[in-house]
Amino acid sequence: MQDTHISLAHGNGGRYMRELIEELFAKYLANPDLDVEADAASITVENNELLFTTDGFTVQPLEFPGGNIGSLAVHGTTNDLAVSGATPKYLSLNAFIEEGTEVALLERIIKSMAEAAAEIDVKIVAGDTKVLRRGEGGGVYLATTGIGIRNGHLLSMKNIHDGDAILVSGPVGDHGIAVMLAREEFGLHGEILSDAASVLNLTRAAHEFPGLRFMRDPTRGGLATVCTELNRATGMGVRLIETDIPVRDPVHAVCDMLGYDPLYLACEGRVVAIINPESADTLLQTWRNIKGGEESAIIGHISTATRQVIIETEIGGERILEELEDDPLPRIC
Amino acid sequence: MQDTHISLAHGNGGRYMRELIEELFAKYLANPDLDVEADAASITVENNELLFTTDGFTVQPLEFPGGNIGSLAVHGTTNDLAVSGATPKYLSLNAFIEEGTEVALLERIIKSMAEAAAEIDVKIVAGDTKVLRRGEGGGVYLATTGIGIRNGHLLSMKNIHDGDAILVSGPVGDHGIAVMLAREEFGLHGEILSDAASVLNLTRAAHEFPGLRFMRDPTRGGLATVCTELNRATGMGVRLIETDIPVRDPVHAVCDMLGYDPLYLACEGRVVAIINPESADTLLQTWRNIKGGEESAIIGHISTATRQVIIETEIGGERILEELEDDPLPRIC
Repeated sequence: MQDTHISLAHGNGGRYMRELIEELFAKYLANPDLDVEADAASITVENNELLFTTDGFTVQPLEFPGGNIGSLAVHGTTNDLAVSGATPKYLSLNAFIEEGTEVALLERIIKSMAEAAAEIDVKIVAGDTKVLRRGEGGGVYLATTGIGIRNGHLLSMKNIHDGDAILVSGPVGDHGIAVMLAREEFGLHGEILSDAASVLNLTRAAHEFPGLRFMRDPTRGGLATVCTELNRATGMGVRLIETDIPVRDPVHAVCDMLGYDPLYLACEGRVVAIINPESADTLLQTWRNIKGGEESAIIGHISTATRQVIIETEIGGERILEELEDDPLPRIC
Repeated sequence: MQDTHISLAHGNGGRYMRELIEELFAKYLANPDLDVEADAASITVENNELLFTTDGFTVQPLEFPGGNIGSLAVHGTTNDLAVSGATPKYLSLNAFIEEGTEVALLERIIKSMAEAAAEIDVKIVAGDTKVLRRGEGGGVYLATTGIGIRNGHLLSMKNIHDGDAILVSGPVGDHGIAVMLAREEFGLHGEILSDAASVLNLTRAAHEFPGLRFMRDPTRGGLATVCTELNRATGMGVRLIETDIPVRDPVHAVCDMLGYDPLYLACEGRVVAIINPESADTLLQTWRNIKGGEESAIIGHISTATRQVIIETEIGGERILEELEDDPLPRIC
């Protein structure tokens, strides 16, 4: 397309919109199941047990060290399928694009989506674009919806037992801090990369364990929110050991400076797994041998001896992790 | 929930977001397949041939005579499945909500979604909400993605033949004009209701005809855009008879005043069908006996004698309908 910036005419259903879709979206996302001229994509699934999920993305800035809103959308949505015990197969994409957005930026975003999807063999088969008036959208918002095929047994919080071990597949909070630093708000600079990545290899490996109870990716609200959700849904307590939770030094440093708790910061490429205690060490070793899981750790366990989420602190005390109320970092995903 | 307006904290993944989802979204959208605590919904489909579609909605104002953005999102997405020859089954919902949005307004929108979904027995099984900073979103944007089960033979523009008849299921342009009047921009007032509605009964009836080639709902870009898309995709011409195209008098009147062409205005509850000429009259009678199809008409035919979209005008002349370039009415859907 000849234009360098998006105009309202790119959203009107006519020639400019067709060019935007054909020359930018279809250029990168083309696959045999994507027919940009059809109202709906015809897809055939291998079995009748599907998982279906959706996510909206509003991250600001749109590009950050380690990714952009496009790769984040693909990872975020397919990771929700992966932790639910499915193999992601198909995605739909909605793009809300603000008038004035640079076409080159949009192209980088779409290219990243295509790469992230190709990496895990997922196809984007349906899409829609809307153009928002200048000032009525934060550059680009995306909504992606995924269909996955269920692998074997269904995971559920209902499977969780007293004494089950809690693992996390890597350091927490990298994504939150990487995005925050990319805003250059506090005069802070850093080398932290977002952890945004597919967790499919990790979840597939975990799913081989019959003792696996449940998995979740700690995104908005972070690890602490996964724990408070577990607590709320099961009625059982959660005990975490602070020194066992992997947090990178620069993440600690920024958190100390700004008063954030890394346990509440978003990750976009981590998995929390709940597994029977007998299998915990084997899963840990398995994950440590998988790319992206090298820094996995066992961080605590489920306990009916308490009804809260309790963290044993570095200095030997205990504190209670409460459900998140204040929003430390809006527009993080 | 106690708040009367949405704040950024309603988007943070913590307590306020949970309350928003439990007390507003789940209140109206609850169904056995919706688990607001799961990362993905587990669904079982009756056969392996699915249709998958997605749409974004940015209509302004959010409420208009005949509907609101919530009912519009359900109708728009399920209609794309219906015209593709599927029975809509499941929807996912993304809501991008601007900080400061009135909770009562949001509740009316969600209630309308629930009613529109119940009417055609579709379940909303997955969702996500994001809160946008004040000034960074036009109140509410929605993205809905649908899964449908294919009924019988696959429709395609490739099936279209020279001489095929073109039907439309009712007057065109009502939605566009209803939304435009609701903006109260030009000091104009009117009684026009949006045509936003499910077309499922119409498409199901049409799908019984073996001679049915293709259907599409004329939304953004209107009837004219459906015709230019047919023309572009098939290489065949389209001939329309202006006096046979149903347009309500008040729609004509507003178009005359503002210089709009009703053929380019959005509909949200109409179907254009292409069918073999022998079956056209029977389909017309069938549609006229279905609620919402009473004003159906045969409006033209496919013709290889021309390579353009030609409309025979009321005064006996001809004009060519070109692909839409200017945007007469942004944020109409």
